[in-house]
Amino acid sequence: MRTKIIPRYAETDQMGIIHHSVYAIYYEQARTDYFNRNGIRYDEIEKMGICTPIVELTCKYKKPAFYNKEIEIETKVIKSTPVKFIVEYNVYDGDEIINVGTTTLAWADKTSLKIINLKKQEPELYNKIEKLIEE
Amino acid sequence: MRTKIIPRYAETDQMGIIHHSVYAIYYEQARTDYFNRNGIRYDEIEKMGICTPIVELTCKYKKPAFYNKEIEIETKVIKSTPVKFIVEYNVYDGDEIINVGTTTLAWADKTSLKIINLKKQEPELYNKIEKLIEE
Amino acid sequence: MRTKIIPRYAETDQMGIIHHSVYAIYYEQARTDYFNRNGIRYDEIEKMGICTPIVELTCKYKKPAFYNKEIEIETKVIKSTPVKFIVEYNVYDGDEIINVGTTTLAWADKTSLKIINLKKQEPELYNKIEKLIEE
Amino acid sequence: MRTKIIPRYAETDQMGIIHHSVYAIYYEQARTDYFNRNGIRYDEIEKMGICTPIVELTCKYKKPAFYNKEIEIETKVIKSTPVKFIVEYNVYDGDEIINVGTTTLAWADKTSLKIINLKKQEPELYNKIEKLIEE
Repeated sequence: MRTKIIPRYAETDQMGIIHHSVYAIYYEQARTDYFNRNGIRYDEIEKMGICTPIVELTCKYKKPAFYNKEIEIETKVIKSTPVKFIVEYNVYDGDEIINVGTTTLAWADKTSLKIINLKKQEPELYNKIEKLIEE
Repeated sequence: MRTKIIPRYAETDQMGIIHHSVYAIYYEQARTDYFNRNGIRYDEIEKMGICTPIVELTCKYKKPAFYNKEIEIETKVIKSTPVKFIVEYNVYDGDEIINVGTTTLAWADKTSLKIINLKKQEPELYNKIEKLIEE
Repeated sequence: MRTKIIPRYAETDQMGIIHHSVYAIYYEQARTDYFNRNGIRYDEIEKMGICTPIVELTCKYKKPAFYNKEIEIETKVIKSTPVKFIVEYNVYDGDEIINVGTTTLAWADKTSLKIINLKKQEPELYNKIEKLIEE
Repeated sequence: MRTKIIPRYAETDQMGIIHHSVYAIYYEQARTDYFNRNGIRYDEIEKMGICTPIVELTCKYKKPAFYNKEIEIETKVIKSTPVKFIVEYNVYDGDEIINVGTTTLAWADKTSLKIINLKKQEPELYNKIEKLIEE
């Protein structure tokens, strides 16, 4: 599943390319879109009193992206445990992969930000995430 | 009172200047600094259950700002009523004013985001803001 | 003509709403989309050696926008002179206007950032902008 | 050498913490400061026709950072070759390290964005970077 994004002017820098810090935001947008389309609404997760702080980010930049030139992001859940999951992103400009990255997200209590065991606390949501890997 | 800011690379755009959307963030940083130095901690205001959503922003761009070239922002409270207050910003590059702007901030309940009467609810904080105008 | 935007998580602040500085970026995205659909590519304008620095921004916030809750922006060119033009934005959440704003953009030389007379330098582009007002 | 940063309100998200995408920007600010203090001005590098696109970013989040609560970033060049260098960042909240990361920066031609051999093209600058590692 892919998410289309048209880079914004504000996201460029004086090198004339999309600034490297923006990819983490693109990943997040792609992840939201991916979850929405798989029937997992992040706003509903927050209503369960759960949030998903990022605990690790990796990002490899192969080619730049440009203002007003559409890119596509392919999003995949590649690992899931009761306390965290890893999402992988491949960013395409046409047929070419220009950027790859991963985010590791923890399952945490929205108020205390402490790690929770999702499998125990919300088994239904846990199973939905597990199912994404199989696909 | 002035706040020094060194523009960041991420804040530039492909015109080679600081992107116009960043000034609202500079104003906010200058306002936090101005309040901190006048003994008003915004985090303490939030602990009172109050927040200050922006209801109006104006911004005039005279000259650009550049990466790694320090600017200074002069911050003044120019108007205060029980429900809102207006802050004015003059952005300097050396002796020259390169940008002027205002923000109108409402006093609101942090949970409902509904407007409150600060003079009634927190007269001490209201008086502190009023006093800033006289200075 | 309207542009759909789904607010991003990174654009929220600790009030739980979209941060006020983001609207200038939404306006820009809506303007790019509006221009693209009217056959005016901003990247082509830059290839003519022209850029359009913002000289004034106004923004009125009536109601907040939220993460993952689609908004729509209606974009209109409301004024055009040989040296600048004004664009107006109405931001909708469903039927309700939650934010209104304007940006005044100057026509400038891309290298020197000095104001140019577009009507003289690029009459065809000038006429395209003029035509947008009539519609 | 450490750089002090006061997180901005705009950098928070609705979890009430500094958004994870902001750390790449903090790293960049710390790197600029580190370079400035070591007599390496990034603006002067750009005047040589050179730029330093990021080719890899890693970021581990141990504890959150908060609005208006100062953090400090310790910056070190940990590796240098003729075509790229790696910078490491340790982010402190008081005595505690809350975030660690690295950026790999390539030496590139500012116009073509193609990789250059800095040791051959600008040996003086190359030596300055090498010297930072020894310190």
